[in-house]
Amino acid sequence: RSTPGAVSCPVCMDAYAEVIESGRLMVSTKCGHLFCSQCIRDSLARAHSCPTCRKKLTHRQYHPIYI
Amino acid sequence: RSTPGAVSCPVCMDAYAEVIESGRLMVSTKCGHLFCSQCIRDSLARAHSCPTCRKKLTHRQYHPIYI
Ligand SMILES: [Zn+2]
Ligand SMILES: [Zn+2]
Ligand SMILES: [Zn+2]
Ligand SMILES: [Zn+2]
Repeated sequence: RSTPGAVSCPVCMDAYAEVIESGRLMVSTKCGHLFCSQCIRDSLARAHSCPTCRKKLTHRQYHPIYI
Repeated sequence: RSTPGAVSCPVCMDAYAEVIESGRLMVSTKCGHLFCSQCIRDSLARAHSCPTCRKKLTHRQYHPIYI
């Protein structure tokens, strides 16, 4: 989350390339916040809200993005 | 679309920073493809499909992303 327009996961701080190389996906929530697929899965197992903005979120309200 | 993880619009080729500075948004389609808000709007006025993967797409099936 340093360079504007460079994608990383704000939970684990992994850059996009690290996420992809380790077999994860980048996902976007419906509210427009980006995470790696592992962090969003772990987070939704604990709370049904977006880790960034706290809006209500279910596992059906995010999808992979392809950059 | 050069650096992995660096976001740009594949239609107008503008980098994320240019998109934001000109008052546009970056959006993600439901199918996970990213565009600037102007290009997706123009494109959907012509065809109801994703410019990248050609899946059926309406104006309700994309949302802004915040990087
Ligand atoms: Zn993560
Ligand atoms: Zn959110
Ligand atoms: Zn564009
Ligand atoms: Zn698509």
